[in-house]
Amino acid sequence: MESGLEREIKIRIASPPLKKIEEELDRLAKTLGTEEQTDYYFDKENMELTKGDKALRLRMTDTRSELTYKGPRLSDKVKARAELSLMLEDPESMRKILLNLGYNIILIVKKRRKNYDYRGAVISLDRVEELGDFMEIEANALDDDGLISLTKELMKLLKVQGEFETRSYAQLLALKTGRSV
Amino acid sequence: MESGLEREIKIRIASPPLKKIEEELDRLAKTLGTEEQTDYYFDKENMELTKGDKALRLRMTDTRSELTYKGPRLSDKVKARAELSLMLEDPESMRKILLNLGYNIILIVKKRRKNYDYRGAVISLDRVEELGDFMEIEANALDDDGLISLTKELMKLLKVQGEFETRSYAQLLALKTGRSV
Repeated sequence: MESGLEREIKIRIASPPLKKIEEELDRLAKTLGTEEQTDYYFDKENMELTKGDKALRLRMTDTRSELTYKGPRLSDKVKARAELSLMLEDPESMRKILLNLGYNIILIVKKRRKNYDYRGAVISLDRVEELGDFMEIEANALDDDGLISLTKELMKLLKVQGEFETRSYAQLLALKTGRSV
Repeated sequence: MESGLEREIKIRIASPPLKKIEEELDRLAKTLGTEEQTDYYFDKENMELTKGDKALRLRMTDTRSELTYKGPRLSDKVKARAELSLMLEDPESMRKILLNLGYNIILIVKKRRKNYDYRGAVISLDRVEELGDFMEIEANALDDDGLISLTKELMKLLKVQGEFETRSYAQLLALKTGRSV
């Protein structure tokens, strides 16, 4: 249901342990809930979406399913891209329609995500299967510099050490598994 | 939400007037409701779906929206094809995602449809804009011959004169408007 520009920063957490950051955030921010998310990424045989820096994702959790299209990245500094989403009541039929249109599942990303609201920004603590622990800060209302300031402030507050990662989980997982996504 | 094989016969009604058939069916069958349906048909620039005898349709009525994929026709005698459908809460986001994936609206079909249940079959009385009046009989549980028998019986009962039409409304409208669908 959310449509618009997604603007986020992802940090690959070096330290402290995720549990420690979680305890801090439980105190400092408003918990929005925890989900086990399985993301199915689709593309055509010719990888037209991947080549165009686009993504088509079916996200399934215990309680909801969502289809999302992501457009090409618009910024080098942070991860900013057009995003269109809609909730699905019947993800299995959607999956079958996509298969019939020639879209195959090229990658599956599984993670546990805990979301927080912090001054209007959404902080996600992610434990991603095969990739490790990450923190994402999404603030669609801020510009690039505002988001970078907020992120640095948060890292200081939470004593987080880690590097900025502009690639998506799908890209990182594809790199790891030797797939050209 | 229905998925499976669609099997139906369409009759282009020559006589009597649609109103007359409707009055008869109101007596003989169970009314399932009347809808104004607007169907948006999508295809890629290269018309890959049309060329493969496939269809991707977004149907919108006053009360619901539905995305449907139809596979190639499987029978010459009746219109039988694989069909996958799912209900959408947010058709506008679906339309935007399809546009971003390279699917454009190639045709819009508008009709008033009144549905009846008659011994397990669904009878639809359709007044299609720019095409005229039709009766469709859909009975996915019957085989081709069973459906043909039922149709002949109904035509006799309702005193309907008309020809069988195996082409879809989308095809008929495309022919009429000179589009190569």
